[in-house]
Amino acid sequence: MRNFNFFRRLSRAFNDYPSLSKVIVVSTISGGSLIAYAEANAFNGSKGHIAHADAVASNDDRRIASSEQVPKKKKVVLLGTGWGGMSFLKSLNNPNYEVQVVSPRNFFVFTPLLPSVTCGKVEARSIVEPIRNIIRKKNVNISYSEAECVKIDPNNKKIYCRATIDSHSKGEEVFAVDYDYLIIAVGAQVNTFNTPGVMENCHFLKEIDDAQKIRKNVIDSFEKASLPNLSDEERKKILHFVVVGGGPTGVEFAAELHDFVNEDVVKLYPNVQDLVKITLLEATDHILNMFDKRITNFAEQKFGRDGIDVKLGSMVTGINENEISTKVRGNGEKTSTAYGMALWSTGIGPRPLIKEFMKQIGQGNRRALATDEWLRVEGFGNIYALGDCATVNQRKVMEDISEIFRKADKDNSGTLTVKEFQEIIDDICERYPQVELYLKNKQVRNMVDLLKEAKGDAAKESMELNIEEFKSALSEVDSQMKNLPATAQVANQQGAYLAKCFNRMEECEKNPEGPPRFRGTGRHRFHPFRYRHLGQFAPLGGEQTAAQLPGDWVSIGHSEQWLWYSVYASKQVSWRTRALVVSDWIRRFIFGRDASGI
Amino acid sequence: MRNFNFFRRLSRAFNDYPSLSKVIVVSTISGGSLIAYAEANAFNGSKGHIAHADAVASNDDRRIASSEQVPKKKKVVLLGTGWGGMSFLKSLNNPNYEVQVVSPRNFFVFTPLLPSVTCGKVEARSIVEPIRNIIRKKNVNISYSEAECVKIDPNNKKIYCRATIDSHSKGEEVFAVDYDYLIIAVGAQVNTFNTPGVMENCHFLKEIDDAQKIRKNVIDSFEKASLPNLSDEERKKILHFVVVGGGPTGVEFAAELHDFVNEDVVKLYPNVQDLVKITLLEATDHILNMFDKRITNFAEQKFGRDGIDVKLGSMVTGINENEISTKVRGNGEKTSTAYGMALWSTGIGPRPLIKEFMKQIGQGNRRALATDEWLRVEGFGNIYALGDCATVNQRKVMEDISEIFRKADKDNSGTLTVKEFQEIIDDICERYPQVELYLKNKQVRNMVDLLKEAKGDAAKESMELNIEEFKSALSEVDSQMKNLPATAQVANQQGAYLAKCFNRMEECEKNPEGPPRFRGTGRHRFHPFRYRHLGQFAPLGGEQTAAQLPGDWVSIGHSEQWLWYSVYASKQVSWRTRALVVSDWIRRFIFGRDASGI
Repeated sequence: MRNFNFFRRLSRAFNDYPSLSKVIVVSTISGGSLIAYAEANAFNGSKGHIAHADAVASNDDRRIASSEQVPKKKKVVLLGTGWGGMSFLKSLNNPNYEVQVVSPRNFFVFTPLLPSVTCGKVEARSIVEPIRNIIRKKNVNISYSEAECVKIDPNNKKIYCRATIDSHSKGEEVFAVDYDYLIIAVGAQVNTFNTPGVMENCHFLKEIDDAQKIRKNVIDSFEKASLPNLSDEERKKILHFVVVGGGPTGVEFAAELHDFVNEDVVKLYPNVQDLVKITLLEATDHILNMFDKRITNFAEQKFGRDGIDVKLGSMVTGINENEISTKVRGNGEKTSTAYGMALWSTGIGPRPLIKEFMKQIGQGNRRALATDEWLRVEGFGNIYALGDCATVNQRKVMEDISEIFRKADKDNSGTLTVKEFQEIIDDICERYPQVELYLKNKQVRNMVDLLKEAKGDAAKESMELNIEEFKSALSEVDSQMKNLPATAQVANQQGAYLAKCFNRMEECEKNPEGPPRFRGTGRHRFHPFRYRHLGQFAPLGGEQTAAQLPGDWVSIGHSEQWLWYSVYASKQVSWRTRALVVSDWIRRFIFGRDASGI
Repeated sequence: MRNFNFFRRLSRAFNDYPSLSKVIVVSTISGGSLIAYAEANAFNGSKGHIAHADAVASNDDRRIASSEQVPKKKKVVLLGTGWGGMSFLKSLNNPNYEVQVVSPRNFFVFTPLLPSVTCGKVEARSIVEPIRNIIRKKNVNISYSEAECVKIDPNNKKIYCRATIDSHSKGEEVFAVDYDYLIIAVGAQVNTFNTPGVMENCHFLKEIDDAQKIRKNVIDSFEKASLPNLSDEERKKILHFVVVGGGPTGVEFAAELHDFVNEDVVKLYPNVQDLVKITLLEATDHILNMFDKRITNFAEQKFGRDGIDVKLGSMVTGINENEISTKVRGNGEKTSTAYGMALWSTGIGPRPLIKEFMKQIGQGNRRALATDEWLRVEGFGNIYALGDCATVNQRKVMEDISEIFRKADKDNSGTLTVKEFQEIIDDICERYPQVELYLKNKQVRNMVDLLKEAKGDAAKESMELNIEEFKSALSEVDSQMKNLPATAQVANQQGAYLAKCFNRMEECEKNPEGPPRFRGTGRHRFHPFRYRHLGQFAPLGGEQTAAQLPGDWVSIGHSEQWLWYSVYASKQVSWRTRALVVSDWIRRFIFGRDASGI
């Protein structure tokens, strides 16, 4: 909660003293660069020694690898270098593991800034960090292979990988990697919902090269529309940008594009600026529907004023080279519109590897790998999954209700006293977080009040509940269970959580620190994973951003844009990317966006 | 000469006071950013007005275009946005032209920094400037079309263009553009000398995407060699980088790659650093053979110490997926070597458009378009060609010798007196620059001395020459004619020269300022183009650079690297790219190169 309060107070300060915000940002940045420089200097100063030590270390490693192999370290294989993987690697500091990272991408992408790359507000290279930069600073033995995992074999504790680099020197060979622990953090892929023509004709915005392709295509569209041999009708078609999906990505791209047109196209392509049209198609009743109503309304109104055509309840039924076909959700009315460029950002689906693995382990009808609250894939003690490729399958209170009652009823009287209940209540809340949520939503102070409610007015301090009364009191609790959103924030927290578990594995084997096992004996080794929502931004263009912080605290405006700059600069994974992103922002303020078609 | 003296004095100062250099660079940079910021602010301040004025102007333009078309401006069509085209556009300020730029590339590339992009010393975007940024600041009516000229029709004063953008919305349509003046500055393309397999298996370094591909491929090579399932032999093959051609590009790439291995690979890929091998193949007896012997020797020795394998007299006879075949020039010995990545940088040849056009106009057996000293394509008064696609065909003195004699012999006496000769000597030197070069090489003070020499010891002040004596005195002059090198410097000066001619076209039509026409009457409109060599750099890696300034002034070392930084920062075409390039250099000093495979 400390984090959240800090942001809330910060934002309030920004609102009250708008000029303060700039001062803070500027001083943060300059202070930051000093620190970065000092850090790098310190590093360079001792470079000779480090390089020497490295050489010695790597010699030692080789010697060990080739000869005795004692003492054997547990081998952790990590699939993926996205938010989950990066966060795990950054937080891991237990040298008793040998970690092998396998990912087709040798870098981490700061995905929240992907929409900024599409129109040149930020450069692609500024938001990527080589994974080798992250691992070489660690005291843990971590190696990386640029390859794609093609098959998981949990019975033999092996994965099979294929090098992804298109090189003329060798064919595509598959190699196997053994593991003691496997961590799956491969993310998800776009979901076309089997809409015909989407794969062939739409852009997506999941990876860094998607963003680069979009940028090139946006510039190409303006160049193409500026050619002399076209009718105005053709120019309008080329400059009709369609965004499918009114989620944060689609909305931010539409806003970026609108800013680009207003700030730069007006100078560089003055003849065609009036022909630009941006359409946003959303199948539900509102854009940004995971946000507060106030933000949704503000965004819809702002887009209306900006001339962005927001079409709500509009489902895309197909898309070909020239036209995009939609169906209005209410009356089924069908229309086709000519378009120049389309971005598809409607949702995610599992990657082929995950689909295949789910089939293997009997989860074939799911949309993501099911894990328990400790992020272990259901049925496996040594396979973890996190981020967009997984969902935490929260355990239902009702499944364990008898065991809970038995554990709580210490004197085996068949009834629960308030005292008995109070002793176990924290454990219940930790193991079943939906209980806490339910109490909060019902605005009940604590669980005893809930139980009293179940007993009716006659309740007293000395009341006792039998099992049936206990069940009925908790009967609606499980309805509060919600899947975690597929966001960077969740994956980031899961990675850090898992690294902390691995860091304290030996310790917690001996002294388990988790809640008691209601179905078994003893305690769980670790506390279960708990997600803390720190808030969410929706940049709406024109240097305005909507911020929704925990507790339904909503704030929209220019100050939030500066808050956005501060938060996103502070969340960068390295001083290098921080310096680059901030200098990109400054460059754009001074010189505008680069319209070179590279 | 002023420029040259400035650089020479600057370099000397750098040599004498090495710390001075850093101070100068730093103060230049910080001064620069202040100016840039002030500039940009001034611009932003008046942005509203400018935008409004623009709108009015473009409305006016449309009205004019659609209705009366008075007074008709001369239409200049410029092909190409390289050094020649950019330099022409930057220097043009005569509003009496309507300029249409046609190029498949909507940006200018600062080509001397291309080798720096290959290993991440500088970012690709930092060395490109959108051509629209350059033209929108001009008072001349300039428009740009992203298209490729596919045919020139000089009889109808038309060119045919094809849009180069791969868009799904329209087929490849050809459109025609009329011109009054055509300026061809399309550059050249790589020359494989018909060596089999080069096109399919080699990288080139002519365009920005070549540099980006090389960068990605270098990183991929290291990733691939780090995979677990390979033998050391395979790793060595993957990490064998071959550079074909020991010219400035090849040498600089080899040096960049060596620096990258030594400074960054050592940290990021410590397990494979010892397996890297760089080979430089050069068909002649020395690398950098357009430079002074001292530089060549230094470079060869430095590369030897660095472990770069320089193979002189080694001609590539073929290249396939896995091997590169060479023949030693002396003994014809043939060898084949396994390689991982190859860069081909041996020379240039004409583009298809130029080849076709040369055939059309009877220059079919040439390697570049022939122009006269005013950069007009031979036989055409309204078609100009400059840069790598053209060569200036210097007129021979011997072709005009009788006319020169007749012009000089004002009293028609049949003999030339010294006085008569002195009156015309400057005109001769201007029209035939080889005369001046010849005098300089023979170390003869002036032409009168040359004539005296021809007459023998008997020469006096009152001597007279007949035509035969005159001819024999100048008989060897034409041997001094040399083609200009295919460099950025030449194209840049030609573009600026041509723009100055266009700027003063009307003025010079009335009052010609060029030398007299020896074959006709009157004077030429303009002074002929004269190339001024300002010097040349060859970065050799390890923060060492060789500089060769005019007058065979040679200097090699660390100070020259700082001179290189200063000159290349100052030569950037905009404050934007200047700021970006300099911040890239700083970033590399602090954080090293980025090894993300994007």
